[in-house]
Order: sequence, then C-alpha cells, then structure tokens
Amino acid sequence: MAKIAILGFGTVGSGVYEVLQHNAASVARRAGEPVEVKYILDVRDFSDRPDAHLFVRNIDAILADDEVKVVVETIGGTRFAYPYVKQALASGRSVCTSNKEMVALYGAELLALAKENGCAFLFEASVGGGTPIITPMHQCLAANVITGVEGIVNGTTNFMLTKMAREGMDFADALKIAQQLGYAETKDPGDDVDGRDAGRKIAILASLVCGHHIYPQNIPTRGIRDVTAADVRAADKLGCVIKLIAWMKLLPGGGVAAGVEPCLVPKTNQLAGVDDVFNAVRVHGDMLGDVVFYGKGAGKLPTASAVVADVVDALKHGGRMHDSLFWQQAAPAEGMLTDPEPAAYYLGIEGAAPAVAAAICGEGQLVAERYDGCAYLVSRADGPALDRMAHKLEAVGGRVRLVLRLLPGED
Amino acid sequence: MAKIAILGFGTVGSGVYEVLQHNAASVARRAGEPVEVKYILDVRDFSDRPDAHLFVRNIDAILADDEVKVVVETIGGTRFAYPYVKQALASGRSVCTSNKEMVALYGAELLALAKENGCAFLFEASVGGGTPIITPMHQCLAANVITGVEGIVNGTTNFMLTKMAREGMDFADALKIAQQLGYAETKDPGDDVDGRDAGRKIAILASLVCGHHIYPQNIPTRGIRDVTAADVRAADKLGCVIKLIAWMKLLPGGGVAAGVEPCLVPKTNQLAGVDDVFNAVRVHGDMLGDVVFYGKGAGKLPTASAVVADVVDALKHGGRMHDSLFWQQAAPAEGMLTDPEPAAYYLGIEGAAPAVAAAICGEGQLVAERYDGCAYLVSRADGPALDRMAHKLEAVGGRVRLVLRLLPGED
Repeated sequence: MAKIAILGFGTVGSGVYEVLQHNAASVARRAGEPVEVKYILDVRDFSDRPDAHLFVRNIDAILADDEVKVVVETIGGTRFAYPYVKQALASGRSVCTSNKEMVALYGAELLALAKENGCAFLFEASVGGGTPIITPMHQCLAANVITGVEGIVNGTTNFMLTKMAREGMDFADALKIAQQLGYAETKDPGDDVDGRDAGRKIAILASLVCGHHIYPQNIPTRGIRDVTAADVRAADKLGCVIKLIAWMKLLPGGGVAAGVEPCLVPKTNQLAGVDDVFNAVRVHGDMLGDVVFYGKGAGKLPTASAVVADVVDALKHGGRMHDSLFWQQAAPAEGMLTDPEPAAYYLGIEGAAPAVAAAICGEGQLVAERYDGCAYLVSRADGPALDRMAHKLEAVGGRVRLVLRLLPGED
Repeated sequence: MAKIAILGFGTVGSGVYEVLQHNAASVARRAGEPVEVKYILDVRDFSDRPDAHLFVRNIDAILADDEVKVVVETIGGTRFAYPYVKQALASGRSVCTSNKEMVALYGAELLALAKENGCAFLFEASVGGGTPIITPMHQCLAANVITGVEGIVNGTTNFMLTKMAREGMDFADALKIAQQLGYAETKDPGDDVDGRDAGRKIAILASLVCGHHIYPQNIPTRGIRDVTAADVRAADKLGCVIKLIAWMKLLPGGGVAAGVEPCLVPKTNQLAGVDDVFNAVRVHGDMLGDVVFYGKGAGKLPTASAVVADVVDALKHGGRMHDSLFWQQAAPAEGMLTDPEPAAYYLGIEGAAPAVAAAICGEGQLVAERYDGCAYLVSRADGPALDRMAHKLEAVGGRVRLVLRLLPGED
C-alpha cells in the first residue's frame, strides 16, 4: 500500500482523489500496489465530509509521516506551492504537480532538488492537461534530437477562436461565453487571452528540449485581443483559420527562438482542425519527423488522470526519471528569444489604400484587396523589417492592425 | 557502457545502428550511460564493412556474452525471431522489437517469460512505427480505463487511399505506385491491402487494453480491394473520405469487439485529415476522453528511433515495465469478435434501382440516388441484418458492392 498526500483540494486536487477512487484497481495494477490518499492539505472547512479525517491545515503533519511517499501539489500559483514542494522534495518525497506557473519559474531548481534527494519531480499535467506530451517527449523520443515544437496549448483562447470562426462572433462575445462557462477568469482573463498561460507552457517544453531553463519573460508573447470577426472571415476566404500558437525551435547556429502569437493556419495543417478546448502539440524529432499529440487541454478529470499517471511513475521509478526528464538551471536571457529568421506574415492594414500598403510592404503580396475596410497582404520579413513597415505606414496615415505568422500547409 | 546486440540487419536493424551512432550523446544522457552495439546477427556477408567484426551468424555468441544486456530483434516474421527472442528472454536479457507479427501471435507468452526472468519485452515500434502509442497508452493513461481504440495503422493503404482521393486514381494504379515506392510488397501486397497488417496491430492494442491475448484470426478483417475511384468521389460528395480503420472497443456487458474495415470518415473527424503514409490512433480513456497520437507510421529511422527509445527504457527500468505493460495468456476465441451492436453502414449497391435498394434495406436512408452506376445509402444495422439485406438484394438481381462503416463527425 503506497500512501500519498494531496496539497490543495480545488478542481484538480479533488479530481485526483476521485480518479484514485474510481480507477483504484487499474492504478494498483500499474503501480504494483494500491495507492491511498492519507492526507489532504486545505485550509477550507471540509468537516462535513465522510473523509474529513484526511484533511489537515498544516504541511508539517504530512512531512512528519514517513509513510507518505508521494506528494501531489494542486494548489496552483507559487506563494504556497513553491515552498511546500521544496520541503517535500528536500525530505525525499516525490512530487507530482499540474502547476505550470511553478514549473515555468522554478522547474530547473526543483528538478535538481529532486535529483539530489533521489526522488521524482513530475509535471505531465502542466502542459496539455490530460494529453500526454511531456512523457512522450522525453521518453518515447529519447532517440531523437528534438528541433522544434509548436502547438495549441491554451484551451480557452482556442474555444473562443472556434466560436468566432463557426458563429461569426466577435472577440468580446466569445470572451463573455468563455467566462460564463468558467473557461476564462471573470476578473482578469489576461492570462489566457494575452497568451501568458501559453507562454508558461511553451517555456516548460522549451526548457525540456534545450536542456536549460527558459523563462516565460524571455518569450515574445501576443494574445488574441486584436483578432476581429472580420479577420476570421478573411482567413476563411484564404482556406485558413486563426489559432494562438506557442512555438519554439532550435536555431541552426545554436540557441533557441520561441514565441506565442496568433497565426494563420492553412486548413491542410493538422493544427487547423483542433477546435474548442482541445489542445495539440506537434513535436519535430530529427529521426522521427513530426508527431502530434492531441487531446483535452484542461478539465478536472483529464488533468487529474495525468497527475495520477505521474504518481504511478513516481512510485515505480522515483529518481531514475531524471536521466531523461531534466534541465539545467540558468539565468534569464538578456533579451527576448525572438526569431532571427524571416518568416511569412499576414498583415491586416487599415487607413491606407491596398496599393499603397502593398508598395510600402516591399515584397508584400496582396492576398485580399480589401475586406471590411482592411487590406490583407502577406510579407516575408523578420522583426525589424516588420517594425520598418509599420513606421512607413504610419507616415501615410495607415496602421498595421493585425500581424499573424503564416504556418505552412501540409501534411 | 551498456552493450546490446541487434538481430537482423535489414531496414529497421540498420536504422537502429544508425540512430545509436547519430544520436549517441542524447541516448547516453537518457539511458544514464553510453549504449554500444557489440554484436549484429545476420547471415548475409558484411565483411567489407569497417565494422565487420561486429557481425556474427549464430546467436550463441551473443547469449554466451554476459556483457550483452539488451537484444534488439528486427529480423521480422516468426521462424527465427520467435525462438531467438525466447532464448534471449530466458537468459534474462531484455528484448526490444518492431516485429508486430511475433507480438500479435506470441505477445502474452513473451511478456510472461520476460516477467519471470526479471527483464523487459518492449515493442513500441510494432504499432505506429515511430509514433508513440503503446507507451502513452499503458503509462500516461495509467489512471484511465481505456474503453476503445480506433485508428489508421497501415501506412501503405492510407497512401493508396490518399492517392485515390487526391488524384482520382483507381485501386490498381494506386497499388502500382505504392509498389514502385516500396510501400507495398510486389509479389503479394495482401498483408497491407487485405488488412492483415492492420489486424495484427489492433490485436496488439486490444490485448493491451483487455489484459488478455487477442488473436488476429478472431478479428473480422476486410481490406480496401473493393474501394473504387467512384466510391471515393461519392464519399467526397458527402463531405467524407474513405479510410481503412482498425478499431476495438470494450462491450458494455464485458467482452470485446474489434475489426479492420474500410470506413466512411466525415471530414470533421480528426482521422479524416490523416493522409499519405501517416498513422493516427485515437484512444478513449474513461477519465481523459479522447486523445490522438499522430505521426509517421513506418520508415527506417522513425521506426528505429522507437526501438532505441525502448532500449533506453529497458536499460533504465528492466522488468519493472511489466506492471503496466502486460497481458495474460489466453486461447483464441471460439468465434469472431464481431460487433453485436448495430452501427451505421454506408452501402454501395449495384444492379438494383435506387428505390428498390432503399426499400429492401429497410431503415436505409438514400444518400446519393445513383452515382457511376451505383446507389449509395446509409443503413443502421448489425452483421446479421447486413447479411439479410445482401440476400434480398441478390433475389432481385442486385449486389452490395461495398460496405463502409460510418464514423461519427466531431470534435
């Protein structure tokens, strides 16, 4: 019988408890022994529950009990989670978490602490919710050098963009529905719609690929606030959809570039068909080529089931996981990890005649003369070139209202 | 330094050797030590190679060398592979293989032998080539009861169906090109086009899901020989594509159904966009919902990279793998594992007026009056009902020329 503790009995934490009860037999078979929750840490009052005796309000009881082998952290944020997780790892307990903020900020430090203490620090649920991404990347692709990752990793914005595409809704209405359904925060939906959540997730995957810590603050991040219903219609006319894509790639001369930005995705690209709250991540291995992992990016039970799979791995393999699941500590980069290579961008330009816009955007190729008062064109450029275009357009009273990176079609 | 042996230096075996040399550093980091090929078993003459000293013609030298920890089996077939693998496992060496025929026939026995001898028997590359499917299924979905699997697992037929859809080619021409490209056997392409290869793969996945051995001969298997260019066009008119789908599902009252058959797949279904030699497998977990794994289903280096990832796991985790990757031995079932539940089928009927065909096929709904001499209709039926319809049609001089299971649209 393996005893574990759950820190934080919110959505994911209570889901972990539910999954362990619902699928106790299959979990026991896979772990090689039954898995039992001995403590649940939460400061709220659960005294009316039949299992009230499991609840504690202080982590000391958990750390003092040698029977507890694995600690599940589902508090979220870093204020409490981070010190608790450090204490648990320092005491030799494996920790499994869904906390992307903590992993994105302190992943390298916590992995090192786990390695030092012969235990595991696992976080499959921090990216893609229940969809297996991190484990296949470091384990099944062990014989590959991963050269790039791109994907849809924020379910809320993907739900909104799907609503906008299917029902012609504008951003504000799509956000309102996402908030009503509990997908987006009511007070400040910025973590989702401004891309910060996606930025944390791609920082985690980039760290795993690069072997050293990549910080979210070094990743150029743009969300979907600028995307209008007209933009979505214009994209459809081109056989494309607009998606919020998080990406990273190794650069030919060494180094890494990464970003979170709305992209124009041809419908022949596998990522174009990923709708609603689903997530999908494409990983490029040098031996394997492209693989895509697709599934529900969030939700109580899917996310909890990924945490429980980590608990099974922690019980079976402990500190041995960190031969492949590891990255070095590193200071944040000096500047942003912008892409030094030119890419194709799709520009929405207001206030300038299409011909003028096309002339200014140099090699720009006009793709839709004018649509709802906006001229759309495609231009191959790097960041500084895009800035120069914007300045020139301003000089003639125009404005770049929208910049979408253009993904290739396939497959 | 971990020493391994490769049995069979064909496409996949030489690929394993290449991957180990090309990505030696990243493999060593993941395995915790460098991995070196000490022997290659192959009866052909490789004496002009610089590494000729590695080649042996008899397995005894390998079995006599205690330094060899893992044996890679890439001979294919069962005549030599099966006895060699048994000897290797009996001696306590872990075995990693891409051999779906051997796993589909003897998987349970070989897993038991590995468990008994404290070593690992791993076969990620036997389904989906390089695409991670088996490892995510048993490890990342450890907290789920898997209730169903369906996917495109034969790259050759998927390549042919893609050619037929995109270029209006008929079966014979698509087969010729697949043969010219080396995707299909020239002498007898039946393993691919008659669905036997897909049958072996779904037998492996069904065994893993059910926990006891499922034999390919119990799985109703139909290939794509009956699919014409006209059928593909008719499907397109309905917003669908035709795909060869291998599927299995747990039945509500216990038991299992499985099949390999050409299906009508709505373009809104994730599997519809899987083209060329790509594979994709959708797995349904009771906690997680649907996840899809997508990637190259074959090819030298992709398949070899999956074998090498298994070698890393075998070195790190050995016999501990079999808590989750295991199924019991069982005799073949008495009859076929046909689906007892009615499903929607798309029927192509020749030699009967559309109205007559619709009247005979009871609840049949006519979807395309007549197209290239064939009446197409959808009927909800189980196997016996389909047989009754075929007999009634014969009585009026008609014939069911094509039966396609209809998959749901989504997602």
